[in-house]
Amino acid sequence: MPDHLTIALEGLSSARQSFLAELAELVAIRSCSGSAAEAGELQRAADWLAARLKRLGAARLEIIPTAANPLVFAELPCAQPEAPTVLIYGHYDVVPPEPLEDWHSDPFVLTPDGEYLHARGASDMKAQLLACIFAAEAAQRSGGMALNLKFLFEGNEEYLPNVLNEFIPANRELLACDISLNADAGMLGKQQPTIVYGLRGRVTCTLRINGPTVDVHDGLAGGLLENPLHVLARVVADLHDQHKMVTIPGFYEGVRLIDEEERALLARVPFDEQSFLETTGAPQSWGVETFLPIERIGAQPAANMLYLSGGMKKGAIPSQAEGRFSLRLVPDQDPHKIYAALLDYLAARMPATVTWDVELGSAYPPVLVSRSSPWVQSLSAALEATWGVEPLFTRIGGGIPVVANLQQHLGVDSLLTGFSLPGDNFHGPNERVHLPTLERGMQALARFLLSPARR
Amino acid sequence: MPDHLTIALEGLSSARQSFLAELAELVAIRSCSGSAAEAGELQRAADWLAARLKRLGAARLEIIPTAANPLVFAELPCAQPEAPTVLIYGHYDVVPPEPLEDWHSDPFVLTPDGEYLHARGASDMKAQLLACIFAAEAAQRSGGMALNLKFLFEGNEEYLPNVLNEFIPANRELLACDISLNADAGMLGKQQPTIVYGLRGRVTCTLRINGPTVDVHDGLAGGLLENPLHVLARVVADLHDQHKMVTIPGFYEGVRLIDEEERALLARVPFDEQSFLETTGAPQSWGVETFLPIERIGAQPAANMLYLSGGMKKGAIPSQAEGRFSLRLVPDQDPHKIYAALLDYLAARMPATVTWDVELGSAYPPVLVSRSSPWVQSLSAALEATWGVEPLFTRIGGGIPVVANLQQHLGVDSLLTGFSLPGDNFHGPNERVHLPTLERGMQALARFLLSPARR
Repeated sequence: MPDHLTIALEGLSSARQSFLAELAELVAIRSCSGSAAEAGELQRAADWLAARLKRLGAARLEIIPTAANPLVFAELPCAQPEAPTVLIYGHYDVVPPEPLEDWHSDPFVLTPDGEYLHARGASDMKAQLLACIFAAEAAQRSGGMALNLKFLFEGNEEYLPNVLNEFIPANRELLACDISLNADAGMLGKQQPTIVYGLRGRVTCTLRINGPTVDVHDGLAGGLLENPLHVLARVVADLHDQHKMVTIPGFYEGVRLIDEEERALLARVPFDEQSFLETTGAPQSWGVETFLPIERIGAQPAANMLYLSGGMKKGAIPSQAEGRFSLRLVPDQDPHKIYAALLDYLAARMPATVTWDVELGSAYPPVLVSRSSPWVQSLSAALEATWGVEPLFTRIGGGIPVVANLQQHLGVDSLLTGFSLPGDNFHGPNERVHLPTLERGMQALARFLLSPARR
Repeated sequence: MPDHLTIALEGLSSARQSFLAELAELVAIRSCSGSAAEAGELQRAADWLAARLKRLGAARLEIIPTAANPLVFAELPCAQPEAPTVLIYGHYDVVPPEPLEDWHSDPFVLTPDGEYLHARGASDMKAQLLACIFAAEAAQRSGGMALNLKFLFEGNEEYLPNVLNEFIPANRELLACDISLNADAGMLGKQQPTIVYGLRGRVTCTLRINGPTVDVHDGLAGGLLENPLHVLARVVADLHDQHKMVTIPGFYEGVRLIDEEERALLARVPFDEQSFLETTGAPQSWGVETFLPIERIGAQPAANMLYLSGGMKKGAIPSQAEGRFSLRLVPDQDPHKIYAALLDYLAARMPATVTWDVELGSAYPPVLVSRSSPWVQSLSAALEATWGVEPLFTRIGGGIPVVANLQQHLGVDSLLTGFSLPGDNFHGPNERVHLPTLERGMQALARFLLSPARR
């Protein structure tokens, strides 16, 4: 009699056509969050997933209404009730596909192209989410499932409001688990399985500076009125010193320096500056020279303006200037302390010729997952057994608020992995996923779910 | 037999009702330049003025088509062909009245309100233009007209393109004159006739800074990519030093310092800082402290950004940042040298992490009119005789490109006066003109036209 793993892998192999058919159904649902017109489609995606989890045999299946798009929650207990619990997170919403003219195929029709499948959500993250379900199904049917599973799927990952900010702290018992699995983090290359162990936190806020209450002809008043655009420019220009360090007082307090071991680990992560420049089209890279590129993005904080605005083409000193800050934070920076420091920074620079106010957007902490936990080692072993290649451990510079949330309110780490690739163009036109990599990913996930449980 | 002046003033008095009726007709024409939908109305305004000048007895009457709105040209020779010639300039276009909900009456219906008349163009400058025609008519009919007149009315003063930039140099003979009269400059108060002797010149240009060719997620790249918004901010922040002086190299070279006599003259111009702050709503005034407010606006150059833009609310380092400069210049700054200096300033500050380009908008020189010329003295005497108050001489900070143009290409000064008042709200809602002041203005113009000619 074959072992559980062999059965599970055979199960995945024979489910290949179903997987493609179901993925085609799921991407055909236009679940673009942030679009009121698509509210029905988001509900439809939630319904579709609930039906799918029901077929999987889920217990306590719930579609939970929220102020925005519904959550889907389910449990799939294994034969050993005392086994640890993994919370599988996913999001079924996608970003809108516009502009449509940039697409070579209908974004809501799963379109094969060699080894790739094109569609909005193919990479981010409908295919990843379905891969988790199929892996769970294969593990379950093999009879060797070693973990209790919970599923939490949301429809507001791509667009505000983040309903999980309130849902997670209010539902600690429902969500109680030993670890979370989040397959939305991607990998570095087809042959390079990857575990992300660090995410940056974030503070965003909007600064408005008011000078005159009306736009004032710059001929009639130029030289006698402070221009709010100039005040905004000074504040932004001051944000970095000549070494490209952020000048907000106390900004670097608490930044955990990486040790030799971690530096060596990160140095293994391939970063091809030439290809970074080609992808972004930037003439040159930038940043604090004493840090590796991967450290600048993952292990060091950053400050950026997302937009500057104010004024019009006509000849006037505008009454208002506006800009939006995005501060990316690393452990152990505290988002609320950093926000307070930014307010001090601004207060110290605002002349009496203007009034100003700041509106806080999001604020969430950075995340570091222990690389030595048994969970990480189990996932790492499953990935290595599948690819025959040791996974790389990396930090990424973006944030995934749910990961910080789970750490903060449930005290659980997230296993951050995924099978999307750098060229998948998620959020852009012609989003795609590499099917052989995705299939390997499902195999690795099944391996992980069958592995002897470790707390 | 009464003298010419008495006849002219009586003529103006008995023409009062005709003046109001004709002004009502003229403001009813929706001649908003810059609106393709109103092209017919602009033509209608030109036709109306041509018909009016024909009734005045004009010779060589022409409606001259241009790339934009037509010019109206006419001559009104006096009995002494050897008399000097005055070119009366005016514009028949107005700015659009929107937002309409801010108006208390229909902007295209002349609406009396006590001593005021409300309508779009009442102040800027249909009433002023008609005042010139009525004054010329009264002077003409009195039999004492001392000057040959030419009229040049345009329909593109408020909105590009400035067709006179090409028309004036190409029509030197047609426009040949000894002086130009421009009644678009306003006065400081009802009881304070005013002659403007200085206008600032101007350079405008748009700076575009390109970083990456696509917007790049600020989480994934923040710390490793230069943000074009930050580069723009540094360039703008550097534009002024701590003394509020402009830092463009050589910017102040050629700035003519005012002498004691002129400083005393300008010190007589009332500048009520409190009322300036109330009107603009600015919390405080600003500028180089060693100069009087009127000097900062009129006799010193200024640099302002008219807008800054780039980026969106989503989390990205934007690919492009843009800003528009407006440099207001004073004699003897040369707009083309200043533009070249600005390009040098920018080149010295642009890092290799971005590319950039600049597009020149307008460039016209500053204007100073000799205060001691017989023409100015003649106008001054006419104003003083009418109001019983010596006119104030002032500089204003705005520019009137046609004045610089006439000085540059015909070598003639402009007499800059007018009968609009500070509260007239030209370009804004409920634009108005003060009828008693306007009537005094017509009397003063008639006096001027009857005065013994001086070259």
